[in-house]
Amino acid sequence: MLKQQSASFSISSLPERQYWGSDLQLPEIPFEEIMHDDESACKWLCTLKKVGIVLLTGAAPKQGELFKLGHRIGFLRLTFYGPTWQVQDKADANNVAYTTGKLCFHTDYPVLQHPPGVQFLHCIKQTAAGGDSEVVDGFHVANKLKKQNPQAYQILSSTAVDYTDVGVDYCDFAVQCKQRIIDVDSRGQAVRINYNNATRDTVFDIPAEEVRPFYAALKEFDNLLNSAEHKFTYKLKPGDIVTFDNWRVLHGRQSYPSGSEVTRHLEGAYLEAMCQPCLLPASGHSELRLLAIPAITYEMEGAQLGSAVAKGKPRFRGIYLHQMSYSTYGCITGEGITGVILVPSAEPQSGMPQERGAVQAAVQVHGQDPARCGQVSTPASATITRTG
Amino acid sequence: MLKQQSASFSISSLPERQYWGSDLQLPEIPFEEIMHDDESACKWLCTLKKVGIVLLTGAAPKQGELFKLGHRIGFLRLTFYGPTWQVQDKADANNVAYTTGKLCFHTDYPVLQHPPGVQFLHCIKQTAAGGDSEVVDGFHVANKLKKQNPQAYQILSSTAVDYTDVGVDYCDFAVQCKQRIIDVDSRGQAVRINYNNATRDTVFDIPAEEVRPFYAALKEFDNLLNSAEHKFTYKLKPGDIVTFDNWRVLHGRQSYPSGSEVTRHLEGAYLEAMCQPCLLPASGHSELRLLAIPAITYEMEGAQLGSAVAKGKPRFRGIYLHQMSYSTYGCITGEGITGVILVPSAEPQSGMPQERGAVQAAVQVHGQDPARCGQVSTPASATITRTG
Repeated sequence: MLKQQSASFSISSLPERQYWGSDLQLPEIPFEEIMHDDESACKWLCTLKKVGIVLLTGAAPKQGELFKLGHRIGFLRLTFYGPTWQVQDKADANNVAYTTGKLCFHTDYPVLQHPPGVQFLHCIKQTAAGGDSEVVDGFHVANKLKKQNPQAYQILSSTAVDYTDVGVDYCDFAVQCKQRIIDVDSRGQAVRINYNNATRDTVFDIPAEEVRPFYAALKEFDNLLNSAEHKFTYKLKPGDIVTFDNWRVLHGRQSYPSGSEVTRHLEGAYLEAMCQPCLLPASGHSELRLLAIPAITYEMEGAQLGSAVAKGKPRFRGIYLHQMSYSTYGCITGEGITGVILVPSAEPQSGMPQERGAVQAAVQVHGQDPARCGQVSTPASATITRTG
Repeated sequence: MLKQQSASFSISSLPERQYWGSDLQLPEIPFEEIMHDDESACKWLCTLKKVGIVLLTGAAPKQGELFKLGHRIGFLRLTFYGPTWQVQDKADANNVAYTTGKLCFHTDYPVLQHPPGVQFLHCIKQTAAGGDSEVVDGFHVANKLKKQNPQAYQILSSTAVDYTDVGVDYCDFAVQCKQRIIDVDSRGQAVRINYNNATRDTVFDIPAEEVRPFYAALKEFDNLLNSAEHKFTYKLKPGDIVTFDNWRVLHGRQSYPSGSEVTRHLEGAYLEAMCQPCLLPASGHSELRLLAIPAITYEMEGAQLGSAVAKGKPRFRGIYLHQMSYSTYGCITGEGITGVILVPSAEPQSGMPQERGAVQAAVQVHGQDPARCGQVSTPASATITRTG
């Protein structure tokens, strides 16, 4: 009998998350390379997954570049601040970002139940004094907090905090949402930071006796975020586009002098990318489309399903394969059989299958009709040949 | 000491979810009423929350009406099938919906990690024979399954199913996602159905021994969805716009004869609405903007915070108040105090506060600076006066 390993999510071949603090080596890739070279675009996305932030350099210092970048891998996500938005000092600002004031560390849009995964900020004009950007690795700091004060971590990952945003911009809006400051997965690992004091509501719907412990926990998290050890400061130059994981990286800026003229101007946008969320299980959301990784096709022959022989073209789909648990190898379609090829745990646990070779393989059959599904073939030696 | 009730989410004043089967009385509201009367628009949204489906009648049978409807309460959500999409028989269809074939019950877009909450389908042209619409209350059926076969419910609410969609439309796309067929909240209640066999992947990354039990469970759920007792059939007329909760209601259609001409044409769209997700805690996602409910302002005087007297204008924000737990009454800002008014559990548990009267009230202070927050005043008799 074929021994099946647990199907827990394995991504050993994808870039592991790399935590950072003030020692961040901010990854840089030229904007034009991303736009014209698929390999660079793929490197950008993988680095975004790994580090959470990538600086694209050398874009034209004018509005509109973010549309091009968005369309390169999907499209921009519309919010009630518009498809793109201009971060500059404005009269009657409807958002603290539209002033010259300091912005404390925050994530964008916790007031939306599904906050934007990836954010772009394109520097068009930069002020001479002040206006430096600050970023911090929220997941890294959350881990620190968990070690340092597990109870504080527990409070921040379980207390529902009220967020609100009311105003007029792309349309008029009056939005409210409940979020935990630190969203965790079933293992208690941080998967999304939802922290924005500018939109945290004056309403805070928790029992009075929980208020002080909550704020004590938040203060501790806030102190860690702002510690010199954790925060990284840099200054955007005109033509720079910083791209970052808004679920992981908190951002802020230092204040700068206000005047009669606009001395600093960033254009911002969110990415709605057409891509594999499951490619990015660590933050699980960014929906980055996988680029430049051609499907590899194989022929397979030999696995028995009852009396039928599974002969067909398994669809091996690039990195997608690496996502699967060890026991699943690929997908096969042919001669009336649609299913998943299972291989014993002795097989390589990740990576592309060999160019050609015999594998111990079974086929698990499924498809659109539940009644016809669920059969698992007896294991047999099958031959895999790379054909494309 | 002021006794605090648990802050669990209470919405007794919001419309309760109303389950339905083949006996559904499909709620109807004239399209023009929604567009021009705030009260009708609010009724529409509340009914959408309660029943999960509302038919708007009398729209012009031409493309573009959905843009108007979307802008009435927010805007349309762009996906890779475009801002709106034309459901009609197409050559080289990239989606089963774009054929004349039967569509089994499904929810849209489980391949997106955050599937659209509200869907619009606007009938522009209707075929004489066939093409009837079918809907079923997914939450109602999920509850039935839970009673009938708790283990099947457990399997469907815990097994991660692979979804995929690859093609070209508004942009080229290659999307993958893992979803549970029935997403549940912490109490095990269904909060989102993710079921679409047309985009369920041929890859199914679970251990082989779990495959048969999964399909047995899915078959049972599928049978319940399709039982005469649960499904409701109706036929859209040109000018009808069906609006429904895509997290709750599964939809399908009967096949119709194909021909050289397009005999049936629906325009579809998803809503990205600027609204209170917390208004709709049962499905928690639809982000419907609250319309036509003016803020009511009150004066409050008398609650003590240390030596300060909380005197100011509490912001009572319409229905939002009803969302709060019993212990929270409203929000107050004034004389250096920002906080939440707490009232004892003897107070009415929901509904607007009285026009004027004395209440036992404390103030819970918070704001943007964690260090200054967390104080709770001693309870005191306070006077509330409605001022606007």
